[in-house]
Amino acid sequence: MKQPNKLKILNDPIYGFISIPSDEIYRLIEHPYFQRLRRITQMGLSYLVYPGAHHTRFHHALGCLHLMQKAVQVLRSKAVEISASEEDALYKAILLHDIGHGPFSHALENLLVSSKSHEEISLLYMEELNDLFNGSLTLAIQIFKGEYHRPFMLELISSQLDIDRLDYLKRDSFYTGVAEGNINSQRLISMLNVVDDQLVVEEKALYSVENFLSGRRLMYWQVYLHKTGIGAEHLLQSVIKRVHELVQLEHEVHIPMTLKPFFGHQEFSLKQFALIDDSDIIHLLKANMQNDDHVLRELCTMILNRQLLKIKFSKTEISNKKINSKIEKLMTAYNFSTHEAAYFVFSGVVDNTAYAKAKPIKILTKTGKIKEFLRASKEPSFKALGQSVSKHYYCYPKNQD
Amino acid sequence: MKQPNKLKILNDPIYGFISIPSDEIYRLIEHPYFQRLRRITQMGLSYLVYPGAHHTRFHHALGCLHLMQKAVQVLRSKAVEISASEEDALYKAILLHDIGHGPFSHALENLLVSSKSHEEISLLYMEELNDLFNGSLTLAIQIFKGEYHRPFMLELISSQLDIDRLDYLKRDSFYTGVAEGNINSQRLISMLNVVDDQLVVEEKALYSVENFLSGRRLMYWQVYLHKTGIGAEHLLQSVIKRVHELVQLEHEVHIPMTLKPFFGHQEFSLKQFALIDDSDIIHLLKANMQNDDHVLRELCTMILNRQLLKIKFSKTEISNKKINSKIEKLMTAYNFSTHEAAYFVFSGVVDNTAYAKAKPIKILTKTGKIKEFLRASKEPSFKALGQSVSKHYYCYPKNQD
Amino acid sequence: MKQPNKLKILNDPIYGFISIPSDEIYRLIEHPYFQRLRRITQMGLSYLVYPGAHHTRFHHALGCLHLMQKAVQVLRSKAVEISASEEDALYKAILLHDIGHGPFSHALENLLVSSKSHEEISLLYMEELNDLFNGSLTLAIQIFKGEYHRPFMLELISSQLDIDRLDYLKRDSFYTGVAEGNINSQRLISMLNVVDDQLVVEEKALYSVENFLSGRRLMYWQVYLHKTGIGAEHLLQSVIKRVHELVQLEHEVHIPMTLKPFFGHQEFSLKQFALIDDSDIIHLLKANMQNDDHVLRELCTMILNRQLLKIKFSKTEISNKKINSKIEKLMTAYNFSTHEAAYFVFSGVVDNTAYAKAKPIKILTKTGKIKEFLRASKEPSFKALGQSVSKHYYCYPKNQD
Amino acid sequence: MKQPNKLKILNDPIYGFISIPSDEIYRLIEHPYFQRLRRITQMGLSYLVYPGAHHTRFHHALGCLHLMQKAVQVLRSKAVEISASEEDALYKAILLHDIGHGPFSHALENLLVSSKSHEEISLLYMEELNDLFNGSLTLAIQIFKGEYHRPFMLELISSQLDIDRLDYLKRDSFYTGVAEGNINSQRLISMLNVVDDQLVVEEKALYSVENFLSGRRLMYWQVYLHKTGIGAEHLLQSVIKRVHELVQLEHEVHIPMTLKPFFGHQEFSLKQFALIDDSDIIHLLKANMQNDDHVLRELCTMILNRQLLKIKFSKTEISNKKINSKIEKLMTAYNFSTHEAAYFVFSGVVDNTAYAKAKPIKILTKTGKIKEFLRASKEPSFKALGQSVSKHYYCYPKNQD
Repeated sequence: MKQPNKLKILNDPIYGFISIPSDEIYRLIEHPYFQRLRRITQMGLSYLVYPGAHHTRFHHALGCLHLMQKAVQVLRSKAVEISASEEDALYKAILLHDIGHGPFSHALENLLVSSKSHEEISLLYMEELNDLFNGSLTLAIQIFKGEYHRPFMLELISSQLDIDRLDYLKRDSFYTGVAEGNINSQRLISMLNVVDDQLVVEEKALYSVENFLSGRRLMYWQVYLHKTGIGAEHLLQSVIKRVHELVQLEHEVHIPMTLKPFFGHQEFSLKQFALIDDSDIIHLLKANMQNDDHVLRELCTMILNRQLLKIKFSKTEISNKKINSKIEKLMTAYNFSTHEAAYFVFSGVVDNTAYAKAKPIKILTKTGKIKEFLRASKEPSFKALGQSVSKHYYCYPKNQD
Repeated sequence: MKQPNKLKILNDPIYGFISIPSDEIYRLIEHPYFQRLRRITQMGLSYLVYPGAHHTRFHHALGCLHLMQKAVQVLRSKAVEISASEEDALYKAILLHDIGHGPFSHALENLLVSSKSHEEISLLYMEELNDLFNGSLTLAIQIFKGEYHRPFMLELISSQLDIDRLDYLKRDSFYTGVAEGNINSQRLISMLNVVDDQLVVEEKALYSVENFLSGRRLMYWQVYLHKTGIGAEHLLQSVIKRVHELVQLEHEVHIPMTLKPFFGHQEFSLKQFALIDDSDIIHLLKANMQNDDHVLRELCTMILNRQLLKIKFSKTEISNKKINSKIEKLMTAYNFSTHEAAYFVFSGVVDNTAYAKAKPIKILTKTGKIKEFLRASKEPSFKALGQSVSKHYYCYPKNQD
Repeated sequence: MKQPNKLKILNDPIYGFISIPSDEIYRLIEHPYFQRLRRITQMGLSYLVYPGAHHTRFHHALGCLHLMQKAVQVLRSKAVEISASEEDALYKAILLHDIGHGPFSHALENLLVSSKSHEEISLLYMEELNDLFNGSLTLAIQIFKGEYHRPFMLELISSQLDIDRLDYLKRDSFYTGVAEGNINSQRLISMLNVVDDQLVVEEKALYSVENFLSGRRLMYWQVYLHKTGIGAEHLLQSVIKRVHELVQLEHEVHIPMTLKPFFGHQEFSLKQFALIDDSDIIHLLKANMQNDDHVLRELCTMILNRQLLKIKFSKTEISNKKINSKIEKLMTAYNFSTHEAAYFVFSGVVDNTAYAKAKPIKILTKTGKIKEFLRASKEPSFKALGQSVSKHYYCYPKNQD
Repeated sequence: MKQPNKLKILNDPIYGFISIPSDEIYRLIEHPYFQRLRRITQMGLSYLVYPGAHHTRFHHALGCLHLMQKAVQVLRSKAVEISASEEDALYKAILLHDIGHGPFSHALENLLVSSKSHEEISLLYMEELNDLFNGSLTLAIQIFKGEYHRPFMLELISSQLDIDRLDYLKRDSFYTGVAEGNINSQRLISMLNVVDDQLVVEEKALYSVENFLSGRRLMYWQVYLHKTGIGAEHLLQSVIKRVHELVQLEHEVHIPMTLKPFFGHQEFSLKQFALIDDSDIIHLLKANMQNDDHVLRELCTMILNRQLLKIKFSKTEISNKKINSKIEKLMTAYNFSTHEAAYFVFSGVVDNTAYAKAKPIKILTKTGKIKEFLRASKEPSFKALGQSVSKHYYCYPKNQD
């Protein structure tokens, strides 16, 4: 890979510096498709709970690029052969793996574009950029689609111990200030190896892997599935649903130009998608704080002014009776119909499995064998990481107890 | 001050936790006026240079609240009397000192609201909130206006070594990753004292003060006055100016509803001001990327896609000849009029004085005397901190050399 | 508690500053008994594995003093009444809880003084100091002995979630650089509360407690029970045993004056104990590198030059056959008797239970009930923390495979 | 340079991990000459002021090895040619540059071995090791002696911006907790370059260099020249002087075997020097706490129990009268002769120049010129860094005012 004429370096509060490995990769970063990620927050509405969490998909992608460089360095030092073009492809694939995210990342993933996951959109972007960059992303795409003959390359990008997670857990922990989630990415990367083109972790890292998994679980329960955050996301999803409905009813709603295609019956267009980001949604909220639909008006106001829902967890499923009683109270208090009140009352279940046996982390033992993570240790709590934990919840406006 | 019923604690990546000292202060934070600060970035467009710098005025204000609590604790441990109501007022004043900031903080300060500084607007907010909170901000306002008989209280809020700077330098250094600016706020606060109701710093902190001042100077040259950032701000200011002009010419511009009052001839209204934040400006940019005015269109696109200006520094003033030559090149290349081309070419001067003698930092010597900072030490480079340094610059679109 | 005339502050790389809460506590710290802790390393010979781990019992005790101040502050903010004299006693008890440690802390605990644990010696010191300080440690001693009527005070000093652990895990993680062990002491302390004079943790800290326990377990396997460290400690213990033996055989051994009482048949004397620290052991090693007993000579040299043992872990108990074969090899190679060779070959078992049910951590649920930690959560891996894990090992000189 | 069979990695609290670049370098580290550095504290008696400062010369040397690897990486990325054997030599030279330090590093440098500086002794070690390692240190020695034809290599090891300082300032700041001294080694290294075989720093690092120099100055005044530390070092030097004197007077002194050669009239022997470290001095102190010479007894006790001197700074030279009055008070109080009392009373001057013009830091301007640091900037306080600042002091036992 050709060295850049001028070494590009970016400041990063976590890694100190991130260097851009080539001119071409710098030009990918400069492309408006990629610059758009500067306006997409990594953690959706989590900043309403953790005021420091305003970091972006842009920054996460750069962090991944940095860690991938470290991984390549470590693997080569262990005599894993990685050619210059494979190296280049790994950098491009990890840089672009999340480029398909839309406004507020996961929070609105299936509501604005119901037909495609963000991974599918990422792939569309890569193919588009491949055209613009004269086919130089072909190998990156092959790896990303799982079609390359060396599976460890995909595992570096997408697996239970991939570069993506090694960056986002560390970064989200850093920006939220939830220090317990601060995993040791550096150590984990230094313990990676490749056997028969599969990604493995050396046995001496067993407790570090366990720490990574339990740190991740902590981040799920404490941050990603934080009850206030769940409530906020439900409200945001309600906004989108209500706008869809009002559009169909031909009720007047102020929708920013860029968002309009996503509330009609249009086919998905990458060009249109490339124009939307968080700011359009914020604009949608602000523009409808005075809408004469009291549901929409109320929803927008609640999010913007952070007047969020109350949420309660329960070990058992939430009964319809409980939900209905909350809905009825709202109907009385605000003169809502049942349908309208349902925009403010939710029940659901969140669950988390710290370790998914289906996509095993492979441990390289000191004697050279490869063992699945749970089988590699006697620790009873390692085994337990493979079990799933669920929590039922319901949420409703405050002052409705 | 009454203890809150339930201790409110927020996570902060810098201080670990920030606790909210009273229910009333918690209700101030909950108010939409204060929540708006979540949507105003602390450092304007600096995130175009430092991708981590997305922290907000909201977060800075909370950080100040935290440090003020530490300061009160330190001063009381040194037998400085601070009554419960003075303590409460200090917290409210520091919490709200920046509430008057508008979109992108300093970057647009005099362009959207030309008649008022952000401090004046902060005061208007405080008075409004004072009404809403039944006069409980009266003492805070008195301190903020410099009308309270104990001057050290204002000095804690606004001076060369105030809580404001102790938080923002640390925070900006943290989020940009420019580690050299990471001042030791904790030590500086622990060295504060009060003599005759004036704020002083104990002599043993002399080198820490110097380090604080030189760290601040480094942040100025490396971050706040970073050349790419200056160029980006000029572009943003050009957008506002061009919109003003187009509005007067009755040329069609898409202006978000919330921003409209700021492009007419209306009186300043706090209510209207309370509705605008960064997202409105981003919306303005996005909505005019296709405007048929090629100046506005180009400016908006350049900022959003980060196609920024080139900037050169010079020891001497920039000659008109140099500027004109840049303007002419633009005129030819884009078929611009002189007036139009001038939206893309700037010259100016930035200057910084690490230490302003006019508002002295007072040092309490071991023998109990009070000396102005520069006189308190023999260090020649301390003296030099009092001198001003200027740099001339001009900037223009890339590929125009 | 009287404020100190002059606020004493110490720099600490972990907490920033540690302040000394009273003049009397400052005088305790100044006492030679306490200053001796400056010469006792916190982690025994672990610095042979982790080169940064040279921190001392002195520093740990100060760290505990700091955290105890935070705990008192948090509990009082939750309306737990703690009188000034109870506060003072808590500080003294935690400051002195480890003062009874001897050279290399745990590594030699039962070899130099076989009749007393370090806790018992700590108590002797406290009683001695109580005499010197005119009875002002009486309450501290009462708490330390578990004789005070408010049990939470002892629990703060000695329990599964005590201030001691909150400091040493954080500190040992910090100085070794094993970042995964960096527990969030600040958050855990902020979640402490007291119900019916018992120490409890608020339910929302459940995952933080789990993280604390799994961080502690990681520190055990990765640091405290690190195989190279275990080998080094065995060698050091062998030195002491060999010296005991040689003394009995009236073989000439160079023993520093201060250590002599510990190799005879003398009664334990606090005065003599107060004179020994790590440096005496190092001196013992250096002075006998040329001893004409080849066992002692070899042992001393191995430790000083870091020519440590090889160690192997095994799931099953180590057979005598394996041990004997190692011993035989040594006998041949060095012309050792069986007895002599046995000084270099060890087998044993290390075990760790992340959470000991016998001394429960009590969780305060949101509904106000108190539940034992393992019963407070559905998480399967929490339950697993209560199970014990053992590893058998044997170690022997390198180049003996 | 051959890759090590097994990648050796050490944990470091500052850099995360330090990797050992080759088997041979690993064997150098394993050598007893180098292992001795584990028992030599980096900062002399500074831990009496900063309780965290127990890090060793061993750790510093490893830190330097780490940073040198970063520097080689950066320079090669800028097309500076460094051959494999030059790389190897750089690592060996920096690893061993301080191996000649004796007990308590600088504190006793000219008292135990008056005929040789620690640099000269380092060279003797390197030559000895060169013999043992079959001449593989020849190039490292050539560089270290300044005899290699590419001067930048020596500049990396010894200059005003060398790897040595980049590690020790960062490390000392880290372990003392004086956060203001935490220089940004990573950024400075990333800004290094080589022109005409001379080490230069790129112009954009100007403020970082200034921050480095002022951070270093702060560390001097606040840490290295801390008044309590100066007093402690004087006491330690007094011990050595008194022992020398008592030996000549044939007064009985307990001197550890290893130290004996250094109190006679013997020639310097590397073999003997290799046997001494901090522990021998501590032993000397402890063994003479009961010596019947009251001067020696008192000095030893004062250091061990941290009953240190009082020190006062003055802008002007200390008059003999002041000193004599302190000496007279001591004579009366302790029945000392003038000569004896003089062991406890000192006067002197400490001075520091942040930037020594004689060994310039060279700045590479954007236009490709090389300018001396002070000439490269207009900042008045940069210029001031070149001026020297002196402080006079005297110290004497407490309670003698």
